[in-house]
Amino acid sequence: MSQRLAEIGVDVHYRHTVGDNLGRIVPVLELALTRSDVVLMCGGLGPTQDDLTRESIATVTGRPLQSDAEAEQRLREFFARRGLTATPNNLKQATVPEGGRLLENTCGTAPGLLVEHDGKVLIAVPGPPSEMREMMRREVIPYLTERLGGRPMAVHARVLRFADIGESTLVAQIDDIIAEQTDPTVAPYAKPGEVTLRLATKAESAAEAAVRLDAMEARLRERVGGNIYGVDDETMEVAVGLALRQRGATVAVAESCTGGLIASRITDVAGSSDYFLGGVVAYANEVKQRILGVPEETLADHGAVSEPTALAMAAGVRDLYGADYALATTGIAGPGGGSEEKPVGLIYLAVADAAGTLCVRHNWPGTREQFKHRVSQYALNLLRKRVLGIEMER
Amino acid sequence: MSQRLAEIGVDVHYRHTVGDNLGRIVPVLELALTRSDVVLMCGGLGPTQDDLTRESIATVTGRPLQSDAEAEQRLREFFARRGLTATPNNLKQATVPEGGRLLENTCGTAPGLLVEHDGKVLIAVPGPPSEMREMMRREVIPYLTERLGGRPMAVHARVLRFADIGESTLVAQIDDIIAEQTDPTVAPYAKPGEVTLRLATKAESAAEAAVRLDAMEARLRERVGGNIYGVDDETMEVAVGLALRQRGATVAVAESCTGGLIASRITDVAGSSDYFLGGVVAYANEVKQRILGVPEETLADHGAVSEPTALAMAAGVRDLYGADYALATTGIAGPGGGSEEKPVGLIYLAVADAAGTLCVRHNWPGTREQFKHRVSQYALNLLRKRVLGIEMER
Repeated sequence: MSQRLAEIGVDVHYRHTVGDNLGRIVPVLELALTRSDVVLMCGGLGPTQDDLTRESIATVTGRPLQSDAEAEQRLREFFARRGLTATPNNLKQATVPEGGRLLENTCGTAPGLLVEHDGKVLIAVPGPPSEMREMMRREVIPYLTERLGGRPMAVHARVLRFADIGESTLVAQIDDIIAEQTDPTVAPYAKPGEVTLRLATKAESAAEAAVRLDAMEARLRERVGGNIYGVDDETMEVAVGLALRQRGATVAVAESCTGGLIASRITDVAGSSDYFLGGVVAYANEVKQRILGVPEETLADHGAVSEPTALAMAAGVRDLYGADYALATTGIAGPGGGSEEKPVGLIYLAVADAAGTLCVRHNWPGTREQFKHRVSQYALNLLRKRVLGIEMER
Repeated sequence: MSQRLAEIGVDVHYRHTVGDNLGRIVPVLELALTRSDVVLMCGGLGPTQDDLTRESIATVTGRPLQSDAEAEQRLREFFARRGLTATPNNLKQATVPEGGRLLENTCGTAPGLLVEHDGKVLIAVPGPPSEMREMMRREVIPYLTERLGGRPMAVHARVLRFADIGESTLVAQIDDIIAEQTDPTVAPYAKPGEVTLRLATKAESAAEAAVRLDAMEARLRERVGGNIYGVDDETMEVAVGLALRQRGATVAVAESCTGGLIASRITDVAGSSDYFLGGVVAYANEVKQRILGVPEETLADHGAVSEPTALAMAAGVRDLYGADYALATTGIAGPGGGSEEKPVGLIYLAVADAAGTLCVRHNWPGTREQFKHRVSQYALNLLRKRVLGIEMER
């Protein structure tokens, strides 16, 4: 919601969360009305008794709830189409504070609310993210854009995504640029397995903003461009897909400790069937041997978590699928299964192509979830760099 | 954070989010101090210039920031061990408002802060979730427990997890129970692919709470027990693991449209290698044929997204891995690839065991991400019910 508001030049200064309790919601709404021109609420529009958004707006504005005949009819039809009867609780969703109006919900049963009151405006949208997004797009943003009158100064942002570098190392290299922080502003964010920089500028047009954002991006690329793998919504799985498309190449994966996460991330991208042939999740040793062709001696001499096994898995899955590239992971996700020699967090990642195979060893202790995500991020970047012919630093 | 606080009887009435801007953070902190006894802050303790939590506490309390010699030494050593030198920005993390104290961070570089002021207390913990959780556990919760003096009334909660039922249908069946809402309270929540009920009661001891929660759970199970698959942290992948362990059985999966997500969810559970043998992600038709043994005629006559293909995939992966049970998915995740006959959202799910195979067809339009999650949730529940011998309703 904040992103969409920023795009039309509405500054979001405060976000308040309160429980489903009228005695707490009402004072928070009153406070919000004293310090903001627009108060946007999310959630509490459902049919159950702890859905109190309608009642709280009615209380704060002194406008009693009234039933909207047209909305009530739509609700009754919605339930009838599904062979159900609308309950009185369901019909509560067709009520609106006096003088306000309902916002149509094209993805669910709960309409939104819009009440203009004392020169301010209260707007309520449903909590389920898909319904909220659609109502913001169809109703709230057009309304606010018109209310703001024409072409306001909007925030235009660009996100640069980094791999193989930590937040403090990155910040140390561009400390002077961040310090200037004038226009565009540059803000670092650290997420598991990834650091991003968000560049933001206020401008009347996207073209005007692009000039400033381009200039700042160029400055940052000069310093730390080698670690930038993507821009904006270009996640690592998207970047891998772009690289493979560019070369007209295909990939297959063999996963032990990541358990299917790498394949799942690759297939999160629409159209990935063009370059992703498939994968093998080889949890049991016998599977590594029989399906991927890892030699029995390799497993006996070096163990399942070893460089020779990772290399054999990558070569094996590449052969099996007839892919141009292959990725393989074998490691110890924990919390059990570790030893002094092979501790929890140990990981071997291998990549294979026509030119040969390459293996990288790391040790990343953490929770099972963190480990799997970090390994998948690193593995996808390893593949991306191999496909694009970028040298590995380590 | 709110969960941990509830467990020791601290009611969280307000949660406020503000940007990295001192002029906005300070008034919000002032407001919080007027209406709460404890103000807990999260984030803004990092080394960069937009990390302003220390400065905001210093401003609100009028206590200037001072360097803590011991913490500064620890920071220098932390960087030295990694072959790095601590920058002045890094050393900012060793400062503390006069009279306050630093809370040790055992998972990262940013210490927390604790300042007692005018009978109230301000506490700041780092933003990265793993660091926040550990500092809550080691420092904040013990401190607040002692400050509250002994054994406060704490909220004890239990979450019942439902499958194969929507929120409104569930609520309609237990509307009278929710209406009473006395003790324990019963609140429904809808998440993608899952509805949960949260039962909560305030009690002096866990044993006292358990009596009340058990009674309410029994009442709810009488009405809607057939749809409850798990309790509390027992996610669907955990419930599947428990069912397989109970029967001493193994499973393998063949995934087309879910692309590895089912395997990844199964392996999110520690110890899943005891029952999960592995899987095949079969995106390309040729892979379904060659590796899983789906007959060429089946693919030619019925297409990759069809009941015969799903059944052949399940039987094929069960044979390949020598597993007791097998799951298979084939469908159209979209946004492309749909047709009038086979629209985006169409999905065939198959399960196989020694007794035979079974296939279910559904049509779940939505985003690619929603589709993959919903299919994986349904498939895991299909497996769970098959393993436990629960009859399928449809």
